[in-house]
Amino acid sequence: MSVGSSDVMAAVLAQKADAAALFDALRAGSRDGRGDGISRDTYGGGEEFAHRLIADHAKRLGLETHRDHAANLFMTLPGQDRHAARLMTGSHLDSVANGGNFDGAAGVVAGLIATRSLQSLGLRPHCDITTAAIRAEESVWFQVSYIGSRSAFGVLPPGALEARRVDTGRSLADHMRDCGAAVEEVRAGKASLDARSIKAWVELHIEQAPQLVEAGKAFAVGTGVPGNFRYPHVTIRGEYAHVGLPRRFRRDAVLAASEFAVALDELWKRRDAEGRPMAFTIGRFHTNADEHALTKVAGEMSLSLDVRAYDKAHLAELEADVMSLAGQVAERRGVEFDLGARASADVAPSNPEVVGALMRAATQLAIPTMPLASPASHDTATFAVAGVPTAMLFVRNRNGSHNPCESMEIDDFLQAVAVLTCWLAAETGAIRQ
Amino acid sequence: MSVGSSDVMAAVLAQKADAAALFDALRAGSRDGRGDGISRDTYGGGEEFAHRLIADHAKRLGLETHRDHAANLFMTLPGQDRHAARLMTGSHLDSVANGGNFDGAAGVVAGLIATRSLQSLGLRPHCDITTAAIRAEESVWFQVSYIGSRSAFGVLPPGALEARRVDTGRSLADHMRDCGAAVEEVRAGKASLDARSIKAWVELHIEQAPQLVEAGKAFAVGTGVPGNFRYPHVTIRGEYAHVGLPRRFRRDAVLAASEFAVALDELWKRRDAEGRPMAFTIGRFHTNADEHALTKVAGEMSLSLDVRAYDKAHLAELEADVMSLAGQVAERRGVEFDLGARASADVAPSNPEVVGALMRAATQLAIPTMPLASPASHDTATFAVAGVPTAMLFVRNRNGSHNPCESMEIDDFLQAVAVLTCWLAAETGAIRQ
Repeated sequence: MSVGSSDVMAAVLAQKADAAALFDALRAGSRDGRGDGISRDTYGGGEEFAHRLIADHAKRLGLETHRDHAANLFMTLPGQDRHAARLMTGSHLDSVANGGNFDGAAGVVAGLIATRSLQSLGLRPHCDITTAAIRAEESVWFQVSYIGSRSAFGVLPPGALEARRVDTGRSLADHMRDCGAAVEEVRAGKASLDARSIKAWVELHIEQAPQLVEAGKAFAVGTGVPGNFRYPHVTIRGEYAHVGLPRRFRRDAVLAASEFAVALDELWKRRDAEGRPMAFTIGRFHTNADEHALTKVAGEMSLSLDVRAYDKAHLAELEADVMSLAGQVAERRGVEFDLGARASADVAPSNPEVVGALMRAATQLAIPTMPLASPASHDTATFAVAGVPTAMLFVRNRNGSHNPCESMEIDDFLQAVAVLTCWLAAETGAIRQ
Repeated sequence: MSVGSSDVMAAVLAQKADAAALFDALRAGSRDGRGDGISRDTYGGGEEFAHRLIADHAKRLGLETHRDHAANLFMTLPGQDRHAARLMTGSHLDSVANGGNFDGAAGVVAGLIATRSLQSLGLRPHCDITTAAIRAEESVWFQVSYIGSRSAFGVLPPGALEARRVDTGRSLADHMRDCGAAVEEVRAGKASLDARSIKAWVELHIEQAPQLVEAGKAFAVGTGVPGNFRYPHVTIRGEYAHVGLPRRFRRDAVLAASEFAVALDELWKRRDAEGRPMAFTIGRFHTNADEHALTKVAGEMSLSLDVRAYDKAHLAELEADVMSLAGQVAERRGVEFDLGARASADVAPSNPEVVGALMRAATQLAIPTMPLASPASHDTATFAVAGVPTAMLFVRNRNGSHNPCESMEIDDFLQAVAVLTCWLAAETGAIRQ
């Protein structure tokens, strides 16, 4: 016999103090010394602390814990049929430097609270329910995406292991070894997860923008993770020149880069107006500190470019637009664009059935929600690309993420966790024993 | 009896080998180890080397040499009346890092070649003729303009002595002391030059742009040194945000700075079309290296701004335009502009009589020339602001200045020196003894 949705809600709300205590313990051990900021550095001391704290907590809940060859942590509530395809939830535990406490960690805590709620209701699921604490989701550290989840599926490109962490200069392989990972197994493409044995994956995450604040909703169901293409190291080369050079002779890299940036922004504005969601970000943008000067026309600009969208055709169209704009600027300004290395990630639309099931769970709980396009990247994309049916739950957050001011009301969080719990109960055919 | 212009030309051309040897000796002692680049660092080893080389050469020519309290070097051919207002020529000997051999040095060598030509013609001038080797014209080192010439006139702002050299971090005062300057006299505003005792100043300089290449002329007479206003340390503050933030919420400092730069360029294009000469340069333009990242909307941009024009009213209008554009961008992008410290230099139009005399000398020598607006800064501006009648001679240069490829044909140089020599002879009433 299935439990009622009000029972689920009550069981989840009963965990409020535990959830808050778990977030506080994570925060207390992740201070980075700069005000309220926390740093859980990828395959470093910060992330490792969080993994140990969460593993200890899972053991106290009686869950089976397992660290795979990439040091990802899997915490499983065993189902009646251990061979049935399982349900998975979770997120990552690392953070950017001087970041906030909730980006990533909220999804892991959510899985544990949902599992504990099922336990407290005396529900024994049909299949295993595994909460994953994924490693190395924040690409700022090694400038490589989805290191932990791609390692779990055996699809991390081998070259990635040689990437250097931006602060320590040490390789990813060395940092992984520090955390007990079996690097040669990662290199050999060993997998700890098999898409065929996963019925579905749902990741809860704070929203990285205030769209839910604007909409007055506690949480939303994500429509998909955008795909992207990235040129992390674009160089624009013009010619250094004396400040006395008249305009018609200048090959000014600052103006070329500025024109390129403004043109991309105009493109985004048009696509927004057409209702075709996308995003572009130039996060790094600079003259060469060894050469630039107050009275010197700049001969070189460096920049990073990240462009994302929700369907493959749109991404391809955007990449052609970027090339065309770069070509026009190069022609007009007498500069050269060296795009450098290209990286990309496939689009990962949410699975309509999983989205539908989550929306139904919200309806049963009488919690208003909405579908949401959120342009950030998430490990969910790796699951989707591997063939797992996926969806995401976004929790309202006023202050964006990747900063010390990330804000998530525990009541908003628990509403989303209640939906996650209802969905797990329904999907696993959990019945009162 | 005056000498004929053809005698002057012959006397100057006879110095060709000596001029080339002097340039070669300067180059040989100023190599900076990067290819063809030379570095004569301001109040450092490079500039000091050049001052010693030039002083030794002047002594061999029998000129009176004098180092003033700021270590400027004055090399004088005595006139018949030592109390008469003198004629001056010269330029600076320092260079930017990894610069070229001619920016500055050409004007000093020109003075010595002109003086030697007068000597070889047996001309004894009515008044003293002084060639000056000015210190510290390149503002890249201390980010202070006209240090040497303003010290000579006793008008260096006292705070400038505390400016730090960008590479060594040591103060201007300390660097000046290294070169034997009497820093306390500079601080007290002592003057080694008095505008009332200077009949005129003419500075020969390579052109910093290829306008003379375009025009097919060996040299030109400058119409004046533009005035400027500078904001060396502008900061634009938006908000750092996750790459997942939709466009309408972003306060992107990169896009704000880009829009500002492009708007200034549009302004310049309009002024060029209207025939109102100006220039603006954003030489330094960068996100914050401690914070920027591939997947982070940039919350801060730093930039330097230099704006110049040839008349005071136009400069004031341009500064109002800059403020207005900054305000519009701030409003539209939700960012703040912190303009930081402001510096400025007055416009220094050439003296029409000196320009006329130089043009007449060119006509007598049958050398085609032209008036030229060149937007660079020169010590000539300090002389003009002090009340000295001034003008400049620009020598053709294909490759711009402040780079190792500065190119100046020695024949072009000697044509301009011949004009300088003719002018000196005419102005001093020099007669064959």
